[in-house]
Amino acid sequence: MIIDCHGHYTTAPKALQVYRDAQIAELKKVPAPGVRTKGTISITDEEIRESLESAQLKLQRERGTDVTIFSPRASAMAHHIGDETTSLHWSQHCNDLIARVCALYPRNFVGVCQLPQSPGAGLGGSIAELDRCVTGLGFIGCNLNPDPSGGHWTSPPLTDRAWYPLYEKMVELDVPAMVHVSSSCNPNFHATGAHYINADTTAFMQFVTADLFKDFPALRFVIPHGGGAVPYHWGRYRGLAQDLKRPPLADLIRDNVFFDTCVYHQAGIDLLAKVVPVDNILFGSEMVGAVRGIDPETGHYFDDTKRYVDALPLDDADKRRIFEGNARKVYPRIARALA
Amino acid sequence: MIIDCHGHYTTAPKALQVYRDAQIAELKKVPAPGVRTKGTISITDEEIRESLESAQLKLQRERGTDVTIFSPRASAMAHHIGDETTSLHWSQHCNDLIARVCALYPRNFVGVCQLPQSPGAGLGGSIAELDRCVTGLGFIGCNLNPDPSGGHWTSPPLTDRAWYPLYEKMVELDVPAMVHVSSSCNPNFHATGAHYINADTTAFMQFVTADLFKDFPALRFVIPHGGGAVPYHWGRYRGLAQDLKRPPLADLIRDNVFFDTCVYHQAGIDLLAKVVPVDNILFGSEMVGAVRGIDPETGHYFDDTKRYVDALPLDDADKRRIFEGNARKVYPRIARALA
Repeated sequence: MIIDCHGHYTTAPKALQVYRDAQIAELKKVPAPGVRTKGTISITDEEIRESLESAQLKLQRERGTDVTIFSPRASAMAHHIGDETTSLHWSQHCNDLIARVCALYPRNFVGVCQLPQSPGAGLGGSIAELDRCVTGLGFIGCNLNPDPSGGHWTSPPLTDRAWYPLYEKMVELDVPAMVHVSSSCNPNFHATGAHYINADTTAFMQFVTADLFKDFPALRFVIPHGGGAVPYHWGRYRGLAQDLKRPPLADLIRDNVFFDTCVYHQAGIDLLAKVVPVDNILFGSEMVGAVRGIDPETGHYFDDTKRYVDALPLDDADKRRIFEGNARKVYPRIARALA
Repeated sequence: MIIDCHGHYTTAPKALQVYRDAQIAELKKVPAPGVRTKGTISITDEEIRESLESAQLKLQRERGTDVTIFSPRASAMAHHIGDETTSLHWSQHCNDLIARVCALYPRNFVGVCQLPQSPGAGLGGSIAELDRCVTGLGFIGCNLNPDPSGGHWTSPPLTDRAWYPLYEKMVELDVPAMVHVSSSCNPNFHATGAHYINADTTAFMQFVTADLFKDFPALRFVIPHGGGAVPYHWGRYRGLAQDLKRPPLADLIRDNVFFDTCVYHQAGIDLLAKVVPVDNILFGSEMVGAVRGIDPETGHYFDDTKRYVDALPLDDADKRRIFEGNARKVYPRIARALA
């Protein structure tokens, strides 16, 4: 079985964005959260099927992958828009839609939820939504935004105790978080070309410099986009850890930090597999996502990352860990979801 | 000849930091810039020699490099502290000290200046200081901080017209800038482990998405730390450029954007040289800098990047370009400085 740990519903039916546009428009008219209504979104099963058959499902079949760990479109989370109520309504709708996808295609998709984070807000809403999605909708993880401000980085580091209540719930539910920012409202940061990658790099260094995993030995994070800049600078990070008297990187990340394979060229994946322990790599493609074109150098889609992993000089057992075994370990609830 | 394009005076005599500490202390007592004095720093030639003989000069000799393009300690620029006047006084002292280093060791060091940037301030002071350093002190380039706020990213992108007056002066003087942030006052960002690398990635994506080099065909930037995350994600950036209908990356960067080799393991340097055109790579080590230890896997210093470049599967002509030719092209004033 081939499990893609990183897919977003970027092709959702238009009614979802119509709802979001109206929600944002309403913010200007009704600033008080108490009187804003959640509203409804009308999407038929047929519309959901259409949105997937020509995109994610088609690509799964063409590329020979089996199941995608599927979450709402990351760039649309936009936690910086509105307030906690805005974010809660939007997250619940997005997560409910993922749940419908998973119910329609239980062999192809397993859900991961967006959290109703908001700059400066507490984590109560996120904890409740995580619990609702995992215990109520059968989801197996969440996406955690380390920068709900959208490029101003006003929240504390992920290793700060402010995040601990959420981590307690994650451990209780035995679900991991993918560290995933959303769109950027800071003109310095292109979303998929800078903000995403920077967040990955930033989160890793936070994990290196703190004792978070001593406090939560069972807490697990997936750092997407191949770990940002980290594998390329693996020597720098090994050296920094050593200078800072931190444990060796491989020990530091062993049971807690994992990288996906969303790196869109063979040389990058080769490097990833060369420096990062195989046990810490999960197959992922981010499809349909950041890069949608065909690489003129190969004639294949940039984001067809299965091809790069297939070409790695690893034995079959190692590849099976990257394609399946590690995902089952990091997302243990997937067994129940696929049973 | 082997030219190291990236060295900082991290070992400056203590009097420099004593001055800085007093300057920062004075900020609290004398907030009005008009009445703050620049003050003096007393450092002997002997102290300068001592600070270099056991560090940068020793490492040059041991590693077999000839000349270092040398600038003030990057993390100490701290443009976010105080105001424009603070930054001007501090920059002038730091640059004057670099000039003394270069005068004492004209075969070993060529100067690059720190700019007196300050969040929200205009570029007049930076332009004047660049001119003073290049025409008066024989410097051959500058370090440009894309985020003088120190991790809050409040300045416009480097492609914004607000930066154009500085670029006009750079082109007039025929000097490049290394894109280099300083320390971070945002607890999310470890300076050398996240902020530096993020800034490199961020600047590159800014260059990809704008027509800056159409406006300034002769403008040149060195992106340090091996280009941040960019080479590892070269496929992503090629794909993003294609999706955004931008020119192919190799065309986009050809005469304008260069990466150094401050990547502290062989696998990283191998990747860099595999994907980035050789003409766009400049040898650099960042020594004595971010990582000071010895790699237990090799028994050599992490930042002894000459070893990694020596081991590249390139012919001698290509290696000479990385070690010398490209630096002479990007920093043409180095010929005069070494004459």
